[in-house]
Amino acid sequence: MRDRVSTPAPVALSSVELRDGFWMDWRRRLGETTLDHVADHLETSGRFDAFRRLGGNPDVGIVDGGGDAKVHKWLEASSYLLNSMEDTTPQSRVETVVSQLVAAQSDSGYLVTDILLGDDEPWTNLTQDHELYVAGHLIEAAVAHATATGEERLLNVACQFADLLVETFGPDGIQGYPGHPEVELALMRLYELTGDSEYLDLASYFIDERGREKSYLAWEVETHEDIGVELDVHPDGPYDGRHRQDHRPLREQTTPEGHAVRAMYLFAGAAAVARETNDESLTAALERLWTNTTTRRMYLTGGVGSSYHNEGFTTDFDLPNETSYCESCAAVGMVRWGQAMFRLTREATYLDVVERVLYNAFLASLSLSGDRFFYPNHLACTGGDHPHARVPEDAWHSYSPPSYRREAWPGIACCPPNVARLLGEFPRYLFSQAERTVYVTQYAESQLKTEIDGEPVDITVETDYPWGGTVSLTVTLDTPTMFELCLRIPRWCENPRVTVDAESVPVTSDEAFIHIDRQWHDGDTVDLHLPMGIRTLGAHPAIRADTARVALARGPIVYCIEAVDNPYPPSQLRVDTESTFEAVERPDLLGGVIALTGSAAVRVANESDDPYQPVAGTHEETVDVTAIPYYSWANREFCEMVVWLHEATSSRFDP
Amino acid sequence: MRDRVSTPAPVALSSVELRDGFWMDWRRRLGETTLDHVADHLETSGRFDAFRRLGGNPDVGIVDGGGDAKVHKWLEASSYLLNSMEDTTPQSRVETVVSQLVAAQSDSGYLVTDILLGDDEPWTNLTQDHELYVAGHLIEAAVAHATATGEERLLNVACQFADLLVETFGPDGIQGYPGHPEVELALMRLYELTGDSEYLDLASYFIDERGREKSYLAWEVETHEDIGVELDVHPDGPYDGRHRQDHRPLREQTTPEGHAVRAMYLFAGAAAVARETNDESLTAALERLWTNTTTRRMYLTGGVGSSYHNEGFTTDFDLPNETSYCESCAAVGMVRWGQAMFRLTREATYLDVVERVLYNAFLASLSLSGDRFFYPNHLACTGGDHPHARVPEDAWHSYSPPSYRREAWPGIACCPPNVARLLGEFPRYLFSQAERTVYVTQYAESQLKTEIDGEPVDITVETDYPWGGTVSLTVTLDTPTMFELCLRIPRWCENPRVTVDAESVPVTSDEAFIHIDRQWHDGDTVDLHLPMGIRTLGAHPAIRADTARVALARGPIVYCIEAVDNPYPPSQLRVDTESTFEAVERPDLLGGVIALTGSAAVRVANESDDPYQPVAGTHEETVDVTAIPYYSWANREFCEMVVWLHEATSSRFDP
Repeated sequence: MRDRVSTPAPVALSSVELRDGFWMDWRRRLGETTLDHVADHLETSGRFDAFRRLGGNPDVGIVDGGGDAKVHKWLEASSYLLNSMEDTTPQSRVETVVSQLVAAQSDSGYLVTDILLGDDEPWTNLTQDHELYVAGHLIEAAVAHATATGEERLLNVACQFADLLVETFGPDGIQGYPGHPEVELALMRLYELTGDSEYLDLASYFIDERGREKSYLAWEVETHEDIGVELDVHPDGPYDGRHRQDHRPLREQTTPEGHAVRAMYLFAGAAAVARETNDESLTAALERLWTNTTTRRMYLTGGVGSSYHNEGFTTDFDLPNETSYCESCAAVGMVRWGQAMFRLTREATYLDVVERVLYNAFLASLSLSGDRFFYPNHLACTGGDHPHARVPEDAWHSYSPPSYRREAWPGIACCPPNVARLLGEFPRYLFSQAERTVYVTQYAESQLKTEIDGEPVDITVETDYPWGGTVSLTVTLDTPTMFELCLRIPRWCENPRVTVDAESVPVTSDEAFIHIDRQWHDGDTVDLHLPMGIRTLGAHPAIRADTARVALARGPIVYCIEAVDNPYPPSQLRVDTESTFEAVERPDLLGGVIALTGSAAVRVANESDDPYQPVAGTHEETVDVTAIPYYSWANREFCEMVVWLHEATSSRFDP
Repeated sequence: MRDRVSTPAPVALSSVELRDGFWMDWRRRLGETTLDHVADHLETSGRFDAFRRLGGNPDVGIVDGGGDAKVHKWLEASSYLLNSMEDTTPQSRVETVVSQLVAAQSDSGYLVTDILLGDDEPWTNLTQDHELYVAGHLIEAAVAHATATGEERLLNVACQFADLLVETFGPDGIQGYPGHPEVELALMRLYELTGDSEYLDLASYFIDERGREKSYLAWEVETHEDIGVELDVHPDGPYDGRHRQDHRPLREQTTPEGHAVRAMYLFAGAAAVARETNDESLTAALERLWTNTTTRRMYLTGGVGSSYHNEGFTTDFDLPNETSYCESCAAVGMVRWGQAMFRLTREATYLDVVERVLYNAFLASLSLSGDRFFYPNHLACTGGDHPHARVPEDAWHSYSPPSYRREAWPGIACCPPNVARLLGEFPRYLFSQAERTVYVTQYAESQLKTEIDGEPVDITVETDYPWGGTVSLTVTLDTPTMFELCLRIPRWCENPRVTVDAESVPVTSDEAFIHIDRQWHDGDTVDLHLPMGIRTLGAHPAIRADTARVALARGPIVYCIEAVDNPYPPSQLRVDTESTFEAVERPDLLGGVIALTGSAAVRVANESDDPYQPVAGTHEETVDVTAIPYYSWANREFCEMVVWLHEATSSRFDP
């Protein structure tokens, strides 16, 4: 394995321990419920059987193949828990599936069941077949598995497949690249683990080939009659490529286009390549893309990809709430891209976005019960249940109808195991380290065990984040050690305070990291106080859907209002921007949350049979309202929900 | 021809003359542009050729048949102009097409080209084949043509077809009814013209058979494998029937369901049947349906059918603006239903809705140039032009992509000739008569020539309606005559005033008709003054899309704001509900309109890279804005538009 480079790398999972608290609850549910739930569905839908059949098991019935990536994602997620779960059930199930994969792999190293069991030849439809995407997820699973177990059976499968890719693709082979990016970032993980530069080179190659004037995928589409790529064809012309980020070279792209998950994965992989290769033009492109994404195409929750039509991007500021798409997988990809950008640049702004996505767009995708999922994530729910009501049921894949209801297993089930693997890997997002600098990147009740200049250093974090903004860090070490501790100041925070061994350290509020570079002694403490006021937020005026509306946030948590907690439908509430909301501890509610309470106005209906009346004849009532964390919505009865509330209006009518 | 019954019948077209003014402009464009434009498209798309081929013309190339209804609608529209146009071109084109229809009719009387030229047997798929719908439009065209010309060639074709229907359908024949209603109202027109009660009986039969527990269409769908009726199948079960108003008997329906055009045509036909048969339960059902439609499922513009998914109805108050469907044909149907309800009940409330639809939802569907059409009609346009932007391009018929742009000829071209025929028939909507009572139902510069008790009576109407509310009526007659003149007071009007021969007549403002029953002398005048204040309207609180928004209206005209007239995108404007707008004559604008001018606030963007900022840090500017009549939108450059403006908010920030 190769040496750590001097950019801040996420720490190894084995060196972080999550302790009680917010994230521990989620991760416990992952181990106790979600992983088995996913595995059960993989079993009943024949996903494991596809491998068993290739492995020569004569007892397997008809299997439809395909969907290998779901198995790999489940393997990856499970691997992250292997060392942290006392129950051995996941381990034995994992080892059984690993054995099945080993047996199923073809001699060439190729392992994609729907191709091996189907009629297509490998690599003949890179545009639509997800072979390279599947390979990427296999590689990620293998890296996680080998890292967790020290055991290389799955890693060998992945390396053989990766070696086949190296052999197959490139200037002397197929000059193509994936129709769905993912393998790029996977190859970079494999490269980090093995140090084999062929994997880096192949990732670079895939990134550079994409979007050329006569691109490989364009050639495929134009010459293969059976490739139907509706979403790649611009209404006014032939193949467009936008859906697969194949419309121009990545270095020349300025806005994220097309399918959001594809874009996030590509950008995350490219950021890893740029870091390893010190590629300035690639870095500049990614910074441009990041700026456009986060300032013009991202929801308050951190969700991206606003359209059902293409599961992806449309135009700047086009962020409808009731039909927000915000695919859960895109949130996973956004977290990974942000983390990769931080590693590339050391800038905290990327971590702010990672935090926004984690606590909102990402967590909303999984039910509090751990076994229900959102594929698209809406910022408003009409609550209506009519089959023809406004939810565009006729979105491009009719087999996965958009829904305001959580599903046990969506028609396309990419999201459930994807959510699982990010939760599994979550502790790695808490700390990063670059030689003698330790970054605390996200705050959670946890302990880091690392080494600095060969000396063991423990850092214990105690906090009730995200409900409270007090973070206490204690350093434990054998001998006094010089190192730099960098504490992230979330951008939402005004007036942070920090003390080191009870002595105040000056902080300016635009500082993104507090750098404490000193000789540390055993028992030294750092106390960080991040005041969590309730923020009444407005959106950029060009975001049509949010004009004259406000949203509530506290700390990293975005709030929403559900009908079940309130006397009037949330869509009718009007909040005075100068009114005061209060934070209220509600251990009884939704697994324990801080709710916000305050008042709002509602317009009262006229007693008239004409629904359109002079507004001067109407009047308002004031009602108490309760807001809950956005991530916790849709865990009770089906009802209306809004994130963006109307601002109270200037009308002054008689009550 | 049979005697007029004592309910108020629309007057004959030949007895009304439109004079200069608002509607004359539209009708002139109809004769000069629209009808030829439609006929040219019917020619190039092979619609006329289908009849020519059946008539044995060997020179006709490949025709796809189908779409006969478009030809019939064009014939109907053209017939309405035959006596009023000096140019003889339409007449010769009409007579040529009539000859082709005569030659094409089969011996049985059947005449539907796509069946006769295709593989299907007649009457084997009432659910989807539009045979009865086509028959209905043929009948309507024939009634219009015979009435206009006194010539019965086309009427004979229609009667032969209608007689075949009488023979074919009923307790002793096919116990079915149309998958797309229309023939019911057409049969009633034929019955009114001919007095043949078999047509009334068949219309009644079609209405009564629909929606039975084991309905005929349900039987078709369940037994015919080739009938795919996605929209009739409820997600949770088998055939549902809602899309075709076949889910329960019409007498038991309480809300309009399914496809809006089908519903409107059915209800219009049923109202005519109820009138002729004095059917109380049918009348009660129609009144219930009307109340639900107009108080909970209708846009401010009078548009109905809010969903792209089914071109139809969803749930109460589900009236989104950017994806409002409001099919133009549904507006035509709504006008006809309203007029039929007035005739059934003599109540003016129905005419108020007819007025709302005519000046807004209906007129918006035709461009000021007369040759561009909207199929769906939106109450807001995002202006965005991205292929994946929010317009649901993947609505159920992909061949007619929803659009914010007017089209020369939509993929499904039901609307263009339908709009044409309502414009053609328009003068009949101005007056109704029941024996010695004359109703002035809509106001336009016009003259009615009628008879009362055998005495000729002329009523001349001078007005600048809809721009001004002054209406002067002059009675011309040979001998003093007793009759009742009923003048409609539009519901939007407060404090109407009326004088008869300069003497004031007391009016209470909740009076829907002013009844003036007296002996009239030649030269008597009535002056009606309907003050047209600018109304700032709010919507029912349950209409989610309009909460905290207002719309502007003046007289019967609903206004909208287009980006091209304003310094900021209309979606960003916030209007103080207490601010004053002014009516401004703009002869230069959009063919001459009254525009509204006033001021609005806009929130100014922060100079921050985070699009979500504490609202307390933002500030507003005040700008001048101009609103135009909704019907005139999308006649200039493609840009954003809104009908519903944000109310100004209570935030009081530094400017």
